[in-house]
Amino acid sequence: MKRKVAILGATGTVGQRFIHLLDGHPWFEVSVLAASERSAGKKYSEACKWRMENPMPEAVKDMTVVKTNLKEVKQVGDVDLVFSALPGSVAGPIEEEFAIKYPVVSKASAHRMSRDVPLIIPEVNPDHLQLIEIQRKMRGWNGFISTDPNCSTIQLAITLKALMKFRVKRVIVSTMQAVSGAGYPGVPSLDIIDNVIPYISREEEKMESETLKILGTLRNGEIQPANITISASCHRVHVKDGHMEAVFVELEEKPDIDDVKKAFREFSGEPQRLKLPTAPEKPIIVREEKDRPQPRLDRNAGRGMSVVVGRIREDSIMTIKYLCLGHNTIRGAAGAGVLSAELMVKKGIL
Amino acid sequence: MKRKVAILGATGTVGQRFIHLLDGHPWFEVSVLAASERSAGKKYSEACKWRMENPMPEAVKDMTVVKTNLKEVKQVGDVDLVFSALPGSVAGPIEEEFAIKYPVVSKASAHRMSRDVPLIIPEVNPDHLQLIEIQRKMRGWNGFISTDPNCSTIQLAITLKALMKFRVKRVIVSTMQAVSGAGYPGVPSLDIIDNVIPYISREEEKMESETLKILGTLRNGEIQPANITISASCHRVHVKDGHMEAVFVELEEKPDIDDVKKAFREFSGEPQRLKLPTAPEKPIIVREEKDRPQPRLDRNAGRGMSVVVGRIREDSIMTIKYLCLGHNTIRGAAGAGVLSAELMVKKGIL
Amino acid sequence: MKRKVAILGATGTVGQRFIHLLDGHPWFEVSVLAASERSAGKKYSEACKWRMENPMPEAVKDMTVVKTNLKEVKQVGDVDLVFSALPGSVAGPIEEEFAIKYPVVSKASAHRMSRDVPLIIPEVNPDHLQLIEIQRKMRGWNGFISTDPNCSTIQLAITLKALMKFRVKRVIVSTMQAVSGAGYPGVPSLDIIDNVIPYISREEEKMESETLKILGTLRNGEIQPANITISASCHRVHVKDGHMEAVFVELEEKPDIDDVKKAFREFSGEPQRLKLPTAPEKPIIVREEKDRPQPRLDRNAGRGMSVVVGRIREDSIMTIKYLCLGHNTIRGAAGAGVLSAELMVKKGIL
Amino acid sequence: MKRKVAILGATGTVGQRFIHLLDGHPWFEVSVLAASERSAGKKYSEACKWRMENPMPEAVKDMTVVKTNLKEVKQVGDVDLVFSALPGSVAGPIEEEFAIKYPVVSKASAHRMSRDVPLIIPEVNPDHLQLIEIQRKMRGWNGFISTDPNCSTIQLAITLKALMKFRVKRVIVSTMQAVSGAGYPGVPSLDIIDNVIPYISREEEKMESETLKILGTLRNGEIQPANITISASCHRVHVKDGHMEAVFVELEEKPDIDDVKKAFREFSGEPQRLKLPTAPEKPIIVREEKDRPQPRLDRNAGRGMSVVVGRIREDSIMTIKYLCLGHNTIRGAAGAGVLSAELMVKKGIL
Repeated sequence: MKRKVAILGATGTVGQRFIHLLDGHPWFEVSVLAASERSAGKKYSEACKWRMENPMPEAVKDMTVVKTNLKEVKQVGDVDLVFSALPGSVAGPIEEEFAIKYPVVSKASAHRMSRDVPLIIPEVNPDHLQLIEIQRKMRGWNGFISTDPNCSTIQLAITLKALMKFRVKRVIVSTMQAVSGAGYPGVPSLDIIDNVIPYISREEEKMESETLKILGTLRNGEIQPANITISASCHRVHVKDGHMEAVFVELEEKPDIDDVKKAFREFSGEPQRLKLPTAPEKPIIVREEKDRPQPRLDRNAGRGMSVVVGRIREDSIMTIKYLCLGHNTIRGAAGAGVLSAELMVKKGIL
Repeated sequence: MKRKVAILGATGTVGQRFIHLLDGHPWFEVSVLAASERSAGKKYSEACKWRMENPMPEAVKDMTVVKTNLKEVKQVGDVDLVFSALPGSVAGPIEEEFAIKYPVVSKASAHRMSRDVPLIIPEVNPDHLQLIEIQRKMRGWNGFISTDPNCSTIQLAITLKALMKFRVKRVIVSTMQAVSGAGYPGVPSLDIIDNVIPYISREEEKMESETLKILGTLRNGEIQPANITISASCHRVHVKDGHMEAVFVELEEKPDIDDVKKAFREFSGEPQRLKLPTAPEKPIIVREEKDRPQPRLDRNAGRGMSVVVGRIREDSIMTIKYLCLGHNTIRGAAGAGVLSAELMVKKGIL
Repeated sequence: MKRKVAILGATGTVGQRFIHLLDGHPWFEVSVLAASERSAGKKYSEACKWRMENPMPEAVKDMTVVKTNLKEVKQVGDVDLVFSALPGSVAGPIEEEFAIKYPVVSKASAHRMSRDVPLIIPEVNPDHLQLIEIQRKMRGWNGFISTDPNCSTIQLAITLKALMKFRVKRVIVSTMQAVSGAGYPGVPSLDIIDNVIPYISREEEKMESETLKILGTLRNGEIQPANITISASCHRVHVKDGHMEAVFVELEEKPDIDDVKKAFREFSGEPQRLKLPTAPEKPIIVREEKDRPQPRLDRNAGRGMSVVVGRIREDSIMTIKYLCLGHNTIRGAAGAGVLSAELMVKKGIL
Repeated sequence: MKRKVAILGATGTVGQRFIHLLDGHPWFEVSVLAASERSAGKKYSEACKWRMENPMPEAVKDMTVVKTNLKEVKQVGDVDLVFSALPGSVAGPIEEEFAIKYPVVSKASAHRMSRDVPLIIPEVNPDHLQLIEIQRKMRGWNGFISTDPNCSTIQLAITLKALMKFRVKRVIVSTMQAVSGAGYPGVPSLDIIDNVIPYISREEEKMESETLKILGTLRNGEIQPANITISASCHRVHVKDGHMEAVFVELEEKPDIDDVKKAFREFSGEPQRLKLPTAPEKPIIVREEKDRPQPRLDRNAGRGMSVVVGRIREDSIMTIKYLCLGHNTIRGAAGAGVLSAELMVKKGIL
């Protein structure tokens, strides 16, 4: 028996990616598609302008879209889990309403930094799921809210986790991010043709704060942020999918470059140990070519769930520098949510 | 009477840009166009596939291209100055041959780091031109070689010069560079469509070493490199012209952001004082908008000779961070050469 | 004394282009900027996100934007002429309101096909301005409405006009149009990166009908459409500015290719005869290179007012085929309006 | 037992695509990789800069590349079939040399229009394979040469074949072609960023002549070209993969649009009947959306082997017009060769 899934924000690009990734999933099946009033009442195939390269799965074409509120969703039938792909600006209260009854795995930023809400990367901080029990008690909810980090944060945090054994102290990161990170319609072509936009609203703050929570330690029911300083400069470039990040890391220890590569290559986590369906074989793939990673060539590594690292070299100011690349709408968005939910199933939380 | 100019590598993109910038120049006129054997003997309009947005100046269309060697160039007639736009791989010995007789202002990398060759940015280190006299004596040349830095170095060095009053200690820079920096045919479209290439051959080394020479001090006939450490990560993005750089700078002093902006805004040098024809009114333009500079909107500031700086902010690891942008084929290439030559005229070197 | 100009839709991309083209105009000066309620009351520099490559003219920065209605505009002061850069969906009634009092030169599609409204390309059908007198009488207006054609129509019609001496019968045209034709935000980058969109709403209909009116004959106060059949297929490609059109034309006569080129080259009209300020020296420029015209290299020919034609060759089905290119936001939009207004001044209509 | 395959030009982009498509093929296995002198003697993984999105198949990584001549290839071992991905300029004599001994299925243009060489699209003209027997006799070869059409021709010819029942008379086609059609390095990014190049060397001639041979009739051992006139205008746009074509067709009969759609939808050929491994389920897919096909969304339909047709509408000059799209390096290149070879297997020719 598959768990029944509702998707909030089902017609947007992250919602579509959830539907794409859940198509044929062994544990989950989509049972409710919720979206804004404009789409409610229509068939999904009519409400949604499908933008994925793969065709729209047959199973959702004739499903009727419902309004994004608890009452409407409940009426449709059984729901075991809610994926929220809502815009950050409206997600807060809606997710709280749903959490009264349902487990909510959210891609939205609204609750990421709340003290009792886990901010999960399954390979990095699966123990933070313990916050859920605390959250439920404190808030008196039957359900709960668990969040996934910002797209540019996830891939950075995965690489930093692999370096924690060398004691990460300070991180400078300069990003070259894909336009799909801004959703649809998102970045106008007039702004990005033959251009770079050196600003993404609130992106630097998210990278600088979320990473510390993710790499932090759960102690006495609270997360102590990691004792790391991060400085980010975020930029949009003319790429459809795949965020590239130039990372400079200061480590307390001074490992050889070969040890660093080994740490990346051997990095593995709960999803790999538990063989979760969406888990990539390798969370981090190290490329030795001098000109990799590249978004178009590497974003689909591990079916979009691996982070690809390259150009690992000593740094004259920090300790090492490298490039990392992740698929921002798979590992950085819907794939992150699905993997989190899979982990919750195995942990008995779902 | 205008000074007569020979251009080596006249059919390439930098050579074309020299011709474009010298069209109607008050002090210089093009008198010899030299290129490879394949072009020699042809009219320039036949030898050259013109790629500038402006049309080919009438004055050069019917000039006969000569081979790039001293004998051929001498036969054409008077030459007061040679601009070298030769590929780095062949420039070395050819420029030395020409320097026996002529002043050579070179965009090629071959001699940039030679001890007796100045590496000039007219606003930054005009005093380094004193090396020319030493060079002439040592080498017994009538002419000399003076070089312009690498395109990504020039704009960085101009911004750092403005910060030297706060004592620059360490610099981390991550670049997003235009494809025109690779010349023609240069970067294949198959490599850069929907992509980033995180590697530019020898670019990081150039930024890390040239900048120290440029900001260095001439003492007893030698340049003491500046006591600064620079770490660069260089990347090619889908932009035609205009290099963007995310810069993180550690300063010994801790100025207010307003003082930093003031230092950028008020920065000025010999070219401005001497009102050189190609000098921009402001070497550095500070933009206050949160999403500037942008290559397409800002690369032509100051007719391509200004560096545009934006998003100046405090940094939690270094002292400040900012973005800077320069037109890589104007300020970063042919414009740099023309401005250097103008400075030499005013200094009595030409 | 310059004529005072109001611009409706002043904050949009066509409105901005009008401001750019009227900066320093010898006959016109901008006196009123009107826009939507959201912008009204603000300084233009605050209301408008300026997207032109040239900086915003000083003269408009501090002008206060007013609402787009006759009463508000009248209160600001004298207006001799109104340029309408309104969206097609709202232009109709607003332009009629303004025409009661003012001459309106409109880029909007609302009135283009109205029987008593001229659809003007100054080089092609200046005599159609006679409709204005008829319009004024019929409608009892002090002002009037004159319209400019759709951007893709203008350049096609100019080239066809030059061919009318060979008696044009049938025209097949396949376009490759720039994203700026869709305004701002317009085409999402997610839709056009690594892609072509083979559909532009109502574009084919406009090319097929407007051209016949423009090339038609004014007889007894009515325009008899030209006896030509046009079939268009319109497509959006990844280009910022400059529409390219592959044109196949059947002619009754069978001229030599050289005669066709001559007809293009020698084509000239009232704007050239009258030396209107915005008139290009040559309405049509013929390029002989096998790979021209190209949008990036040719769109600024004649300061964006020339149509560039190339690859003129015999056709095995129709009579000839060729490529033509025009700058869609200059010759195809704001420049068309300014040139029309200049013609009206010389004709005593303004 | 799989048939052993040699690939000539194995390091180029078409060669790579052959390797990609033959990876795991049920009937063929790669046994020899031949390339230019520069690559000969190296491991394939060292000789080849792999540019496919999928990783290089393990099976070829350690294969030693041999020089492209018969002697070298013979020495490596058994070969049942040669795929030629050679550049058109050198393919002629080399393929003839190989044909003395081996069946050669060629993507090169050298022999396409030779009277005794079939130019095959398996769905369109499988009977033309009969030329092979004639060719062998005339030339005294053990092997033979069979060719695949030009990439832009294949997709056009497939759609025209489906329309032959309405008696095609004349065809005007205007293309928007991907840069991958020019191979690697191919189109420089400086030429295509923010641009269209309205010329592809010899492309129009190929479309206009090859199509007539493909749609022609084999009679008395000779192909009578189809009695159709085609006029093409070919243009390169900023798309990585996927050629788009705007097609205007004159038919003797005047079918309803619904009949045309039906003819496209029901079109099927030998590859479908024989269930060839690389055959798409549907050679032609009809899309009803007003803005399809689009290269990025549709090029992988039928694993890159289907042609996607859309915007089928009546035409006021010809009879109908439509857009068609095909993956130029799969259906238009290596996939065409593999499908041809599969057909030959089933026909007993291999």
